[in-house]
Amino acid sequence: MDELKPMDAEQLREYGHKMVDFIADYYKNIENFPVLSQVQPGYLRELLPDSAPVHPESLQDVLDDVQSKILPGVTHWQSPDYFAYFPSNSSVAGFLGEMLSAGINMVGFSWITSPAATELEMIVLDWLAKALKLPDEFLSTGQGGGVIQGTASEAVLVVLLAARDQVLIRAGKDAIGKLVVYSSDQNHSSLQKACKIAGIHPENFRVLKTDSSTDYALSPESLSGAISQDISSGLIPFFLGATVGTTSSTAVDPLPELGKISNSNGLWFHIDAAYAGSACVCPEYRHCINGVEGANSFNMNAHKWFLTNFDCSALWVKDRSALIQSLSTNPEFLKNKASQDNKVVDYKDWQIPLGRRFRSLKLWMVLRLYGLENLQAYIRNHIELARKFEELVNLDPRFEVAAPRRFSLVCFRLLSAENNVERANQLNRELLEAVNSTGELFISHTVLSETYILRFAVGAPLTEERHVVEAWKTLQEKASFLLSKLIE
Amino acid sequence: MDELKPMDAEQLREYGHKMVDFIADYYKNIENFPVLSQVQPGYLRELLPDSAPVHPESLQDVLDDVQSKILPGVTHWQSPDYFAYFPSNSSVAGFLGEMLSAGINMVGFSWITSPAATELEMIVLDWLAKALKLPDEFLSTGQGGGVIQGTASEAVLVVLLAARDQVLIRAGKDAIGKLVVYSSDQNHSSLQKACKIAGIHPENFRVLKTDSSTDYALSPESLSGAISQDISSGLIPFFLGATVGTTSSTAVDPLPELGKISNSNGLWFHIDAAYAGSACVCPEYRHCINGVEGANSFNMNAHKWFLTNFDCSALWVKDRSALIQSLSTNPEFLKNKASQDNKVVDYKDWQIPLGRRFRSLKLWMVLRLYGLENLQAYIRNHIELARKFEELVNLDPRFEVAAPRRFSLVCFRLLSAENNVERANQLNRELLEAVNSTGELFISHTVLSETYILRFAVGAPLTEERHVVEAWKTLQEKASFLLSKLIE
Repeated sequence: MDELKPMDAEQLREYGHKMVDFIADYYKNIENFPVLSQVQPGYLRELLPDSAPVHPESLQDVLDDVQSKILPGVTHWQSPDYFAYFPSNSSVAGFLGEMLSAGINMVGFSWITSPAATELEMIVLDWLAKALKLPDEFLSTGQGGGVIQGTASEAVLVVLLAARDQVLIRAGKDAIGKLVVYSSDQNHSSLQKACKIAGIHPENFRVLKTDSSTDYALSPESLSGAISQDISSGLIPFFLGATVGTTSSTAVDPLPELGKISNSNGLWFHIDAAYAGSACVCPEYRHCINGVEGANSFNMNAHKWFLTNFDCSALWVKDRSALIQSLSTNPEFLKNKASQDNKVVDYKDWQIPLGRRFRSLKLWMVLRLYGLENLQAYIRNHIELARKFEELVNLDPRFEVAAPRRFSLVCFRLLSAENNVERANQLNRELLEAVNSTGELFISHTVLSETYILRFAVGAPLTEERHVVEAWKTLQEKASFLLSKLIE
Repeated sequence: MDELKPMDAEQLREYGHKMVDFIADYYKNIENFPVLSQVQPGYLRELLPDSAPVHPESLQDVLDDVQSKILPGVTHWQSPDYFAYFPSNSSVAGFLGEMLSAGINMVGFSWITSPAATELEMIVLDWLAKALKLPDEFLSTGQGGGVIQGTASEAVLVVLLAARDQVLIRAGKDAIGKLVVYSSDQNHSSLQKACKIAGIHPENFRVLKTDSSTDYALSPESLSGAISQDISSGLIPFFLGATVGTTSSTAVDPLPELGKISNSNGLWFHIDAAYAGSACVCPEYRHCINGVEGANSFNMNAHKWFLTNFDCSALWVKDRSALIQSLSTNPEFLKNKASQDNKVVDYKDWQIPLGRRFRSLKLWMVLRLYGLENLQAYIRNHIELARKFEELVNLDPRFEVAAPRRFSLVCFRLLSAENNVERANQLNRELLEAVNSTGELFISHTVLSETYILRFAVGAPLTEERHVVEAWKTLQEKASFLLSKLIE
């Protein structure tokens, strides 16, 4: 056997160029794939061997397998015809940042393990905070600062833990069964999961009901009522999760009012703007986060709609010591002079894992290679495309727009002639299955006030007006077919 | 302003090729950098602007800044002269896998969001389980299975949560204050952090003392004694964290005995083989995980010493339903037919975050492009280099090997003429600072039984015998200098 040279610079160059061409060709042909993978469960096991090879195989063999076996099982989030969930943007700049991070391949748990990784992250999150006009208290130059988490789930978990531990220091650790968390029923499931992880009792997770009267935003009255009741029952309200741009319908919770209630009751106030935060770099959308000055923490996912490849979830806190108090460990084998002199940030103490990638590189490259003006134009273009889609829906009397469109998501549904909610829901379920199984577009769904709703989320980097128009045609055709079957 | 085309296939091709060349050149010149970055805290803020650019900048400008501003702040984990902590391997195959994953950029939380991502992960972790000769119960074809976590910290957290919730179902959620976790004082700090997150009371985290009499392995007697005492105090022992290859000295806990004690007391038995797991693909090291058949979960980091770029932490469990019960959420907006028919694995329910990268690609490419035989030779070569370093230490009477070498880590120290522990410790601290500040090599330290120990961990992909010999020469020179100063 030849000696293995697993990191030969010239082999990296040769193979790296091949892979770049493979990926560039993938994007060139991306419209030819079914957006939603059409494979059946277990398809891949039949195509691959049962065990790892003993001897090396060639790169060409692997690339051939990617083409013939892997790509058919991929749901193409970067397809211009992808309108499901929320977007997860890839871009040339984000991709280059990922490459560079994978190339350097360092593990930045402490400042000393790569000062540039920690410092660039602090700087770039300050840049992004300024672009969002966050209050200065969220900047790293004061008591707060930003940190890149993998996902919004991890962001809400770490701040929930910080808030929990602050309260338990005062109330004693046996008080955990009394801690109460609040959010609307439109809040992302990640908060519920964070509560389970943190040991918050499930019956103390208050899911406050919303409806169309507030466009599915959390009502301040409902929150203060719940808090008063819990206090009078001897419980300890301690955390509010609010959302700017809910997953189901991009509702925006009334931050200023919620902030007042949180502050006067001593709650940690967290804002999840995972999706809609990106829009707030545009001056005309910045008002959506008015009230952020009353929050303890704020989160937006640069990996959703801000051209930064997954994963890059930006979290800012006003009081970094709360995070550190909750999440720091200091084993001997990681001790070093810079950390012990308290001169540096060690991001290991702001997150769940110890190890961490050099994720700020990709966000830095996105901001530099595109510039804020271009990024604003990018966001506005998607919102305009969604507005056009909404217009198309409104022009067809068989459909209705089912919730106000605020950003680039349109919630809509096919109306049923009969006045029967379950039949209408079934009709829309069938419409979803029908369009997704064409492979021509991919949309997802939600339920609002027991009504099944289709979600059309514009936001893939390659989406143009023609893709939106074609998607609508397919939706209309499938709707016509389903409605005609009903008449038969 | 020109229209932004953030994902233009031909721009990706052009810029991608440039970045490949940049990274290949980085590896070509990697020996020219100081291994440990020599910058001062805050260095980067002085070099970068205060806010993000409004207008786009050129790729060349960014690459120039990477060269002149970022790389000086990087600690070069891939340098052949990197011997600190544990390795974090990069390889051509791992790098290609990262590129491809970043190129496809999908978010595989549920099977449907990219069936290939879920299925390849199941298959490749079965491959790796077979290479490690893990019992069949850990394969995905039964009730168990493997999953890629970001880090060993997340791996131990998710199994701790699964174990916690299983016990609390029986004992009631108010029993959380009675739950007891066990590990040796050599266990990684990630278990302590996981306990904090999960709400285990700090006084119920039993850190069992080890010493040189067991080569810093956990003594079964000490464990069973602690369990008996806790049971008689009305507490509930529920989790044991054992280690194969501890961070300080690569000690190996006696798995068969620990397994018996765990099983007879109903504890969840987790094995952390984050570093040393890789060695167990070699038949002559497989005995180190004898006893894994008694474990509930087993973890090894392919991103440490198995040529798979960070992050790729492989976790196997025998009972996947325990994880799912603890970590699943099922919001309406993620419901889909494949999941509801229970025909598929949705890895979102095996981990903390919702979103997840296509991480199996890089492990698959490592296994295919190198083959198991090459990977075994790779591991053996590092162990042989460590053996040579140990030999060099033994030849110099001013030094001693401070703990048995089992894999590719050598624990050693400079002896002090006086018989004073603190003076000897200070001497070794000074030696560490002296060699690391040359930039010629980077080593780290630990403390064993109050003695400050230097750690020399071989494992970077480019390390050859000459690097080990040169590192030893630098250590000897700096030691001579420090000892001569003492005599003056």
